[in-house]
Amino acid sequence: MTHAIRLLGIDPGLRRTGWGMIETAGNRLSFIASGTVTSDNKKSLAERLVELHDGLREVVSRHDPMEAAVEHTFVNKDAGATLKLGQARGIALLVPSLAGLPVAEYAPNLVKKTVVGTGHAEKDQIRAMVKILMPKATFNSDDAADALAIAICHAQHRGSASARLAAQGAA
Amino acid sequence: MTHAIRLLGIDPGLRRTGWGMIETAGNRLSFIASGTVTSDNKKSLAERLVELHDGLREVVSRHDPMEAAVEHTFVNKDAGATLKLGQARGIALLVPSLAGLPVAEYAPNLVKKTVVGTGHAEKDQIRAMVKILMPKATFNSDDAADALAIAICHAQHRGSASARLAAQGAA
Repeated sequence: MTHAIRLLGIDPGLRRTGWGMIETAGNRLSFIASGTVTSDNKKSLAERLVELHDGLREVVSRHDPMEAAVEHTFVNKDAGATLKLGQARGIALLVPSLAGLPVAEYAPNLVKKTVVGTGHAEKDQIRAMVKILMPKATFNSDDAADALAIAICHAQHRGSASARLAAQGAA
Repeated sequence: MTHAIRLLGIDPGLRRTGWGMIETAGNRLSFIASGTVTSDNKKSLAERLVELHDGLREVVSRHDPMEAAVEHTFVNKDAGATLKLGQARGIALLVPSLAGLPVAEYAPNLVKKTVVGTGHAEKDQIRAMVKILMPKATFNSDDAADALAIAICHAQHRGSASARLAAQGAA
């Protein structure tokens, strides 16, 4: 009998951070839950980061995952957008790590290639493949679907040399 | 009698995050403490962010400031460096806000202009002016000196329209 391992995928963003919880046992993937943590853009940046922190901490505490994975995104065009994303990403990495979980990082191309089969997949293709791989999956945003794709990517690559390299390369 | 208010300045960085604690009462500035929180670059990014979080939380808990200020830095040249800085900056904004402190943000040019008198000051000039404004100040890094300069900037601008605008503009 193969032991089921619960994994949390996170697609970080200051406005909307998507999260997806799955279980993997051997080759089997099961959908557990997904959602979107939002922050109020009328509040200060520090208060918005607290909203993301509190929302993700509640997800970790409620669903008790054993490992986490966060997308390693770049926004090359705009330093302001990259800084904002980095701030949200800092919280997405911090919260599971504070809870004692190992946190892997994956480039978007690897997530797309693992889930859809090509590194240049569109959002529609990712949503469709997440539903094919886990028919019971539901998601209330593209960010939640992306987070499920990140969790699926981690289920495929966890423990492998590529996951370790991805984590080291990103640090 | 003017009530003394304790302020924490933070200069965020993934390798080294400088912090400076001062008190302001009317026109008087007093040095309380300063230091540098470092992260181990052999660890994963998530673990390094936990090190920054734990270090800053200890500073807040030990010195009990009433308000915090964080430098709003940009690195326009390199998206990778901007993302790293953003992640560290997310933690620097989060920790005082989790402790219930209001967190202001100031552009580096305003910090330099407030402390040295010109927006294009060098590191040496900032260190020298921090020592002139607070002769008892000590700092173990440029980052700690910068953090004291950020705290001094906040002492001058707190409660003013420019501080509120700076905080809103950055969010």
